[in-house]
Amino acid sequence: MSTNENLSKEQLEELLQTYRKFVEKELFPIDLKVIKGPFRSFLPQLHELRKKAKDLGLFAPHLPKDAGGLGLSLVDFAKVSEILGQSPIGHFIFNCQAPDIGNMELLELFGSDWQKEKFLKPLQEGKIRSCFAMTEPENAGSNPVILSTTAEREGDYYVINGHKWFTTAADGATFTIVMAVTNPEEESPYKKASMILVPLDNSGFSLIRNIPIMGEEGEDYISHGEVRFENCKVPVDHLIGSEGQGFALAQERLGPGRIHHCMRWIGICERVFSLMCQRALTRELYPGKPLAEKQTIQNWIAESRAEINASRLMVLDVASRMQVHGSKAVKEEISMIKFFVADVLMKVIDRAIQIHGALGVTDDTLLSFWYRHERGARIYDGPDEVHKASLAKSILKNFPKA
Amino acid sequence: MSTNENLSKEQLEELLQTYRKFVEKELFPIDLKVIKGPFRSFLPQLHELRKKAKDLGLFAPHLPKDAGGLGLSLVDFAKVSEILGQSPIGHFIFNCQAPDIGNMELLELFGSDWQKEKFLKPLQEGKIRSCFAMTEPENAGSNPVILSTTAEREGDYYVINGHKWFTTAADGATFTIVMAVTNPEEESPYKKASMILVPLDNSGFSLIRNIPIMGEEGEDYISHGEVRFENCKVPVDHLIGSEGQGFALAQERLGPGRIHHCMRWIGICERVFSLMCQRALTRELYPGKPLAEKQTIQNWIAESRAEINASRLMVLDVASRMQVHGSKAVKEEISMIKFFVADVLMKVIDRAIQIHGALGVTDDTLLSFWYRHERGARIYDGPDEVHKASLAKSILKNFPKA
Amino acid sequence: MSTNENLSKEQLEELLQTYRKFVEKELFPIDLKVIKGPFRSFLPQLHELRKKAKDLGLFAPHLPKDAGGLGLSLVDFAKVSEILGQSPIGHFIFNCQAPDIGNMELLELFGSDWQKEKFLKPLQEGKIRSCFAMTEPENAGSNPVILSTTAEREGDYYVINGHKWFTTAADGATFTIVMAVTNPEEESPYKKASMILVPLDNSGFSLIRNIPIMGEEGEDYISHGEVRFENCKVPVDHLIGSEGQGFALAQERLGPGRIHHCMRWIGICERVFSLMCQRALTRELYPGKPLAEKQTIQNWIAESRAEINASRLMVLDVASRMQVHGSKAVKEEISMIKFFVADVLMKVIDRAIQIHGALGVTDDTLLSFWYRHERGARIYDGPDEVHKASLAKSILKNFPKA
Amino acid sequence: MSTNENLSKEQLEELLQTYRKFVEKELFPIDLKVIKGPFRSFLPQLHELRKKAKDLGLFAPHLPKDAGGLGLSLVDFAKVSEILGQSPIGHFIFNCQAPDIGNMELLELFGSDWQKEKFLKPLQEGKIRSCFAMTEPENAGSNPVILSTTAEREGDYYVINGHKWFTTAADGATFTIVMAVTNPEEESPYKKASMILVPLDNSGFSLIRNIPIMGEEGEDYISHGEVRFENCKVPVDHLIGSEGQGFALAQERLGPGRIHHCMRWIGICERVFSLMCQRALTRELYPGKPLAEKQTIQNWIAESRAEINASRLMVLDVASRMQVHGSKAVKEEISMIKFFVADVLMKVIDRAIQIHGALGVTDDTLLSFWYRHERGARIYDGPDEVHKASLAKSILKNFPKA
Repeated sequence: MSTNENLSKEQLEELLQTYRKFVEKELFPIDLKVIKGPFRSFLPQLHELRKKAKDLGLFAPHLPKDAGGLGLSLVDFAKVSEILGQSPIGHFIFNCQAPDIGNMELLELFGSDWQKEKFLKPLQEGKIRSCFAMTEPENAGSNPVILSTTAEREGDYYVINGHKWFTTAADGATFTIVMAVTNPEEESPYKKASMILVPLDNSGFSLIRNIPIMGEEGEDYISHGEVRFENCKVPVDHLIGSEGQGFALAQERLGPGRIHHCMRWIGICERVFSLMCQRALTRELYPGKPLAEKQTIQNWIAESRAEINASRLMVLDVASRMQVHGSKAVKEEISMIKFFVADVLMKVIDRAIQIHGALGVTDDTLLSFWYRHERGARIYDGPDEVHKASLAKSILKNFPKA
Repeated sequence: MSTNENLSKEQLEELLQTYRKFVEKELFPIDLKVIKGPFRSFLPQLHELRKKAKDLGLFAPHLPKDAGGLGLSLVDFAKVSEILGQSPIGHFIFNCQAPDIGNMELLELFGSDWQKEKFLKPLQEGKIRSCFAMTEPENAGSNPVILSTTAEREGDYYVINGHKWFTTAADGATFTIVMAVTNPEEESPYKKASMILVPLDNSGFSLIRNIPIMGEEGEDYISHGEVRFENCKVPVDHLIGSEGQGFALAQERLGPGRIHHCMRWIGICERVFSLMCQRALTRELYPGKPLAEKQTIQNWIAESRAEINASRLMVLDVASRMQVHGSKAVKEEISMIKFFVADVLMKVIDRAIQIHGALGVTDDTLLSFWYRHERGARIYDGPDEVHKASLAKSILKNFPKA
Repeated sequence: MSTNENLSKEQLEELLQTYRKFVEKELFPIDLKVIKGPFRSFLPQLHELRKKAKDLGLFAPHLPKDAGGLGLSLVDFAKVSEILGQSPIGHFIFNCQAPDIGNMELLELFGSDWQKEKFLKPLQEGKIRSCFAMTEPENAGSNPVILSTTAEREGDYYVINGHKWFTTAADGATFTIVMAVTNPEEESPYKKASMILVPLDNSGFSLIRNIPIMGEEGEDYISHGEVRFENCKVPVDHLIGSEGQGFALAQERLGPGRIHHCMRWIGICERVFSLMCQRALTRELYPGKPLAEKQTIQNWIAESRAEINASRLMVLDVASRMQVHGSKAVKEEISMIKFFVADVLMKVIDRAIQIHGALGVTDDTLLSFWYRHERGARIYDGPDEVHKASLAKSILKNFPKA
Repeated sequence: MSTNENLSKEQLEELLQTYRKFVEKELFPIDLKVIKGPFRSFLPQLHELRKKAKDLGLFAPHLPKDAGGLGLSLVDFAKVSEILGQSPIGHFIFNCQAPDIGNMELLELFGSDWQKEKFLKPLQEGKIRSCFAMTEPENAGSNPVILSTTAEREGDYYVINGHKWFTTAADGATFTIVMAVTNPEEESPYKKASMILVPLDNSGFSLIRNIPIMGEEGEDYISHGEVRFENCKVPVDHLIGSEGQGFALAQERLGPGRIHHCMRWIGICERVFSLMCQRALTRELYPGKPLAEKQTIQNWIAESRAEINASRLMVLDVASRMQVHGSKAVKEEISMIKFFVADVLMKVIDRAIQIHGALGVTDDTLLSFWYRHERGARIYDGPDEVHKASLAKSILKNFPKA
């Protein structure tokens, strides 16, 4: 979906600078308020900002030019993504937020013409939102091939039955893509499931609740749905790709998705790092003696700086190889950055909270939001443990045994 | 306040068993619902439970018998406290919750007769609640001797002006004890401040807000107030102890307070440990293969067990020495358990979340509540860094230099 | 072997004080020199010290009184052991060093009369040394039930063939106890092996080398042998216990053995902690500014203090239960202290080295010796990973599954 | 000294491949034996290998072409350095070992013509060795500006008096460069000292001992000297640069020096990583069940891979900026990689030892050598703590305070 051609160094630097200014000037002053919600009450204001972004030619940086985007390469977009990640509403404003970005990539690559026309286009334009229904409460997310949701063929329809959760942003979405077993007879667990597009006005679909997560239910885009499909009938042309191709598509979808997540996390780290340093410089233990002079604080700042830099270099390195060689070629490195950066993220946030003292546990800074809502980073899209085992096994497989 | 005499081993074991049953039977089934709130709506039900506790002779285990309690020693109460800590409403039900327990201890030791009659008695009986106003947003909590709040003497009154926060449970409390500078002329920063009792119906007092903490404002007992004193006049007989004695009293108050906290944390650890093991045994990666068979999970279970046991032994060891020799004698060990146990607590909770997977970040278990609300454990009552430095300096001071 | 009766508090404190003085006065001044070796050249001096210990009634504190010891309980001996552990030659001087102490316990419990007369007695008197041949280079020590060494019955003899290493202190020993498969036909891997006593003047035995470990071969008591049994014939009465009982005996031997190790490690920790504090107080970054004033150093001192205290409490807690209920009853707690204390040991040593700076990596202090020779603590007698898994499995087994 | 021009990607890859083959074919089979020593006995063999390296045009990769080297850029040499670092004798064979490489760089930049002719040239050719005398036992190495060694001007001579240690490879060296106070009257501690070249046949110089480090004294190149200068007279033309310039030169010397160290450490990490994986694949817990199947082992392999990759990317990133902008411009990033990579190094080695089990603590693999001799990595050239504080202060200084 993204091009292989990077911008020139100068072009890129100018572009990044433009994003940086936008984010700092337009988003930093309001983001803390917005994420406290209620989110819907801010939608008009957010759509104003989206319009402004469009006017400045900054909207949808990940999309091809002919789809209204900037036609950035994966690596260039990754750098933009870090900047957007510094604000919890950054990606949303520029319409490159998960899970929509993943769905856009998926439909661009594997959607049929009518699917593109009817669903992809308005999604790209920011007119609708979507979601992705994969995880099931009854089955371990760390082993995604075990699915209970089924989609049985009845004439020209699929009849879907199942129970999903962590269907991010289902509340207010126009459609979902659901992963369901269509081919139970296949021997390989990787070939049993398919991806099917389901418009959410379907009466067989229901949003049971926005799951209360870390103290908040949220709403609209800032929410994670628990949903049910009960004899949910959709025409067979709502299948994406072909039957049994579900996991193959999921892999395609998750590869760049993890790059996006990682760069967003690095953006968070940078914002948090700034908060950490500012607090250290301004909080005085006694007059004239700021926290910044304490060695423990200095250790945390130095360690955070090192770990954030390491994270960025690793992610960009993997992104540049993915850009040239494709997702599959860097499958194990993707695992590597997933657990490495998620760990750094949580460590940096934790140190920042400690430096902030009592203020750090309040909702008066962004730290609490990220401490709570990014704890999932070590779990979603595959928990650390799965990625570590997977990376190690790949390494060992390629290792000479003698 | 507590006696020096421990129960016999058999008596104690029987008592603990009684508490254990009460907590498991009465509190475990409802506590998750209660802490989701709104808290006030549960008060009738909670007061029912308090009554039941009284009827069973279990109420206020920390109080002397003549004050309606069980007259337990510090060590015996610590063991009870661990059991109560397994439920987030445990201490509340038995009326030994912070900050009231600290205020009870303080008034018992240093309150005047009328203070005891008017405030301590109903507090002990669970008829009213109280709070403690010490931390100020403008001054680093880690250096408590720097206070901006003042109480100026005007005739027979103190006129208090100041801004406080993290005044736990101010919402709904009947009185607060406030730490304010009465003797600015004293050279030693430790002798400038006093503790003054302020009934909260005083028009000079206002609760600005319940501070939103980690995603929740809470209410009533489950809240942390930001409060203001504006020309708040109270008669001089509201002084506790004598002028300038504030920090000395605070030390007395905090010593056993940290034992209570630590034992409550260990209680949390044990509940979390159970959740961890249960999840590991029941969550299957694929049919017949529970998480419990994975070595990483086993590592976490083993490490958690070791760290929790270590914590309990340390806290009980310090408690038994404090019981005999007083708070001051174990000042440095108190610092030691404060940072050690708080660290174990956060590690155990974090592992349990990871083992729970997506469920772990939802509010469908208690993990999220503790992950959020106990992050403060490494900050309140002195951040880790202060306790470590303080312990190290004591050690080094007593060390032969040759 | 040890009694169940503890000394009175006063008796014990006096005894410990006596050991403390001996160790500080007699051993601290020479131990660094002794462990640099060559060890044999110091034997006359060490035997002098043993004599002195005997004269003072301090020799062999672990032995029953009628065997020339002090008849201490396991717990009391554990406390003595910590003191002896502060010097790398402490246990040797008092004849309670591994592996001899384990062999004494084994022969006391399971040796035949002639074995006791011929081997145990001189061992108890410190006239001979012994070793224990279990680990095999070809088989993972973490799974001890897989053994290649065999002892085949030929008439009234066992003919032993096998290759062992980490036969500690084989160099100069009078006999070894070897673990060898005598009953290969047994189904249970736990019932295939036996323990056989082998005098080392047997021509079928050879010491291949003292294994160079962490830069040193060592010699005599300070060495770890690689040994071979080639058609090594010993009369059948050299069997200890009965055939197939090898692992059962090994468990008996290892239980208290791990208590001894843990207490010795805590002794090391205390000596290292002293070195750490002394260095921090005397090393100046610039005139008048000792390292001790740096917060990072203070953190390490505080954390070390907490971890060492936790370790001691845990080990003594397990020891006191083992003393009453036997090894088996505390099998899982033994695993727990094994990995917990070994980890603390390595962390404390590592911090002390860092505080010492360049001096810390030289052999001019004891730190280097322990850094090198105790790295094995996380490996010998079962690596961390095995103990963690074993503890976790026990916990999970006893856990209600609902 | 090094050029700014990198080789083409193809040229570089070919060159690296050549080095890789040499190191694997010529050095891997002998290096374990060589470092066990005695080192001098291997010198003829090592000089044979140096000759072979010269014949293949691989010798002294860091030197300009006209000095007999390959004229590599800093970045290209860094990549070569990683390969050489995989063997403990790698840098020595190619004559780019510390401390000689630092001295070569120093003399190239600041040496006078005769110094270059007389000392630099034979050093570059590998005909002599040199050392660097800076650290003093009496003063904290972490604060290098405090020096007791003096060089007083007497006519046309400097008379040097002082006591140094960790003068690496003094044994067998032809000259040293000594850091001594020449200008005690200067106010700035950074301007008091100078660097002076001292031929070691000077009667005022003595090598007191090769310091026993982590169990070994070593000899010749593999040693660290404690040395004394007593009225050691050298002509004033032995001054390097100008008087008082000592620390300025040291900074120049240490900048690339830390890049070299870091890349060498990464080389060690890679070799250790290989050993780790090989052991995991071949060590069986029971027949058919290699260690590699255990999740803990997999975690360590995955974490090590991530950390090593992060290290390499960071060091090469800093190196490429240093190559363009000079040492000073990346001063803080140098601190960052110093502590980050040293930490990774020790963690990777430690995990490898644990995976090797008992074998890991023997000298039968390279692990023990590196575990012992690279513990210093967190201390030499500035301990972690100094680098962290220094990095943090730089960051905070450049931080907007508002």
